Amino acid sequence: MITASKRGAAMPPSPIRKLKPYADKATAAGKTIYHLNIGQPDIETPAVMRDIVKQLSTTVIAYGPSQGLPEYQDALIRYYRRYGIELARENIIVTSGGSEAIIMGMTVCCDPGDEILVPEPFYTNYNGFATQASVVLRPITTRLEDDWELPDISIIERLITPKTKAFMICNPNNPTGKLYGEDELRKLAYLAKKHNLFLFGDEVYREFIFSGEKHTSLLEFRDIDDHVVVMDSISKRFSACGARIGAFISRNKAVMQAALCFGQARLCPPTIEQLMAVPTADLGKEYFDEMVGEYKRRRDTVLEGLAKIPGVEYKVPKGAFYIIVRLPVPDAEDFVIWMLTEFHVNNETVMLAPAEGFYATPGLGRNEARIAFVLNVEKTKRAMEILRLALAAYQERK
Amino acid sequence: MITASKRGAAMPPSPIRKLKPYADKATAAGKTIYHLNIGQPDIETPAVMRDIVKQLSTTVIAYGPSQGLPEYQDALIRYYRRYGIELARENIIVTSGGSEAIIMGMTVCCDPGDEILVPEPFYTNYNGFATQASVVLRPITTRLEDDWELPDISIIERLITPKTKAFMICNPNNPTGKLYGEDELRKLAYLAKKHNLFLFGDEVYREFIFSGEKHTSLLEFRDIDDHVVVMDSISKRFSACGARIGAFISRNKAVMQAALCFGQARLCPPTIEQLMAVPTADLGKEYFDEMVGEYKRRRDTVLEGLAKIPGVEYKVPKGAFYIIVRLPVPDAEDFVIWMLTEFHVNNETVMLAPAEGFYATPGLGRNEARIAFVLNVEKTKRAMEILRLALAAYQERK
Repeated sequence: MITASKRGAAMPPSPIRKLKPYADKATAAGKTIYHLNIGQPDIETPAVMRDIVKQLSTTVIAYGPSQGLPEYQDALIRYYRRYGIELARENIIVTSGGSEAIIMGMTVCCDPGDEILVPEPFYTNYNGFATQASVVLRPITTRLEDDWELPDISIIERLITPKTKAFMICNPNNPTGKLYGEDELRKLAYLAKKHNLFLFGDEVYREFIFSGEKHTSLLEFRDIDDHVVVMDSISKRFSACGARIGAFISRNKAVMQAALCFGQARLCPPTIEQLMAVPTADLGKEYFDEMVGEYKRRRDTVLEGLAKIPGVEYKVPKGAFYIIVRLPVPDAEDFVIWMLTEFHVNNETVMLAPAEGFYATPGLGRNEARIAFVLNVEKTKRAMEILRLALAAYQERK
Repeated sequence: MITASKRGAAMPPSPIRKLKPYADKATAAGKTIYHLNIGQPDIETPAVMRDIVKQLSTTVIAYGPSQGLPEYQDALIRYYRRYGIELARENIIVTSGGSEAIIMGMTVCCDPGDEILVPEPFYTNYNGFATQASVVLRPITTRLEDDWELPDISIIERLITPKTKAFMICNPNNPTGKLYGEDELRKLAYLAKKHNLFLFGDEVYREFIFSGEKHTSLLEFRDIDDHVVVMDSISKRFSACGARIGAFISRNKAVMQAALCFGQARLCPPTIEQLMAVPTADLGKEYFDEMVGEYKRRRDTVLEGLAKIPGVEYKVPKGAFYIIVRLPVPDAEDFVIWMLTEFHVNNETVMLAPAEGFYATPGLGRNEARIAFVLNVEKTKRAMEILRLALAAYQERK
């Protein structure tokens, strides 16, 4: 009998995807599920992207350069320039989704056993990437009561050990919807410089801001150029999750050199989907205003729905397209499974992502769930109404 | 000053790609280079694949399942069935290229510090994947004089240590063109069973056999189901290197469960390019006869060319599309750089892959180079003639 390695066996199943079997069963039984559990938008992938493949004249789908097609690197340079961020091709490696960029950062900047400090709750897949890279995630706990603000700099500093190698921050945040302002980010920048740590920024939701505030990218902190690595992706902002086009960005030459070696080993990111991504550089204010406006309407619909549900707690999310809601139940996972298996309103039900998996500290988040604003207003309205009825029925049942 | 991790700094640059700057410079200076150095075929990607994207009606390029789109898993099941290999969906995870399947195998089956035994010379990128997974590759040396046969089973067995976790074999072999027969593979299967090791099979060149022999897949060794992991890819057989569609295949349930967790972390392989790959299941004997026939003509052209060059040594490769040639020079890399920088015939030159990077044992392969049969017969003929003239001039020069 031969089995997986310790590392393999330690890989956590995705808490977002682990309830999928219950959902599949419900669907097979004819139930309609409103999926508020996963960040898969229903927004159309821009036609300029889809048109590229329709006109594809390439007859050999060949390897591209390991760092990405030059035309797509240049498109990214134009994209960042609109935000006042100047990059050169040597600062950019195109990756297979933001996922590969995160794994690249962890393996290129950390050795096995090294630690990364990350505000919790955090995007659960960081756990999987950390296991793959044999690095350890240490949580900086943030709380709903504090509107998910980072704790005081002295509290963060006490978490730094000789094994700490990096901070990781997702801004705007998945799963809390928190938008970290320049002042908060400066806390981490100060500590990164003082303790010689990397500062990883997951900025895939850069444009998803509902309150008119400006997004602060870590790439703007020019005094710590060597410390900053940004992981990015077109998945959300151009509604192209399945295209798997991301980017690894840094001005640290040694890091880029090592990352390129990793990139060379895996040869290249997908060619056709890079070609599709080239015209995204020219999707500007008009595109984003419309897209973000739609997400704002959805967010507001979720908030209106929540306002009608007794006993829920939450803060208004300023960015990304998620909210963490504290539910009036002891165990959000049990409630979600119950909604899928026992409950329905006219054969319809709702799926949320239980939030415990977003925390590294045991016991936290058990009564919380993440809601993604990924369905249109009408569907969201209906889903929130079903959620209200479900919570009432679930509490009644006890 | 903050720099890459030890792991990052240890990442070897691809020896195949590291001479690219010389090639770029030669190209910029107006030289034409016959690229025999890289496995990028000029064969057209089948029209049935390209037509899929032209007819793409999907408006949202969404995440697919982490294990791959069911329609593509089913296409793979049909593909393997033609070779007498029965698989179920739960034996298959679609990956971003064969590269991701190899990294997945190394991380799911090995812990940091574990060793993998691999016949050398071997596909150089195994080094990069091993560094990324913090595992150690130990070479089983094979020699041109022995027609690249595996050494005696007792010699292989002596290389097994308490840290050995797996064998890795590429069949037909990149870079030697060696086709391992059932008897040779059985040696490894016997040892894998006896010492409870994994047996990794890189079978991306399965159909590239020029001598009428049958390919033996490790998946046929049903007595060691739990030990076998096959890494596969459409890149070469369907000339779609840039599509990045591979597969991780095993009947070991624990391994597949852990691999799926890794798969879930990175969400999914590229959606559009999986859709493109679906019709490949129906490309049968006729397609492969024509494609492999073309590669055979190219191989034969290389062999004819080599026969005219004094002092080169080689064995006739039976599979894949590579040959390792021992050159009458002390340092093949120096010779290749010289061809790119100093030499030309009517402004044309040739690029080979120096073979030292394919060996793990220091000093081996320094006077060897890998030739890829990736150009059409006419170009190959011309390239071999230029190579003959280059070798004569290089020796003259000394």
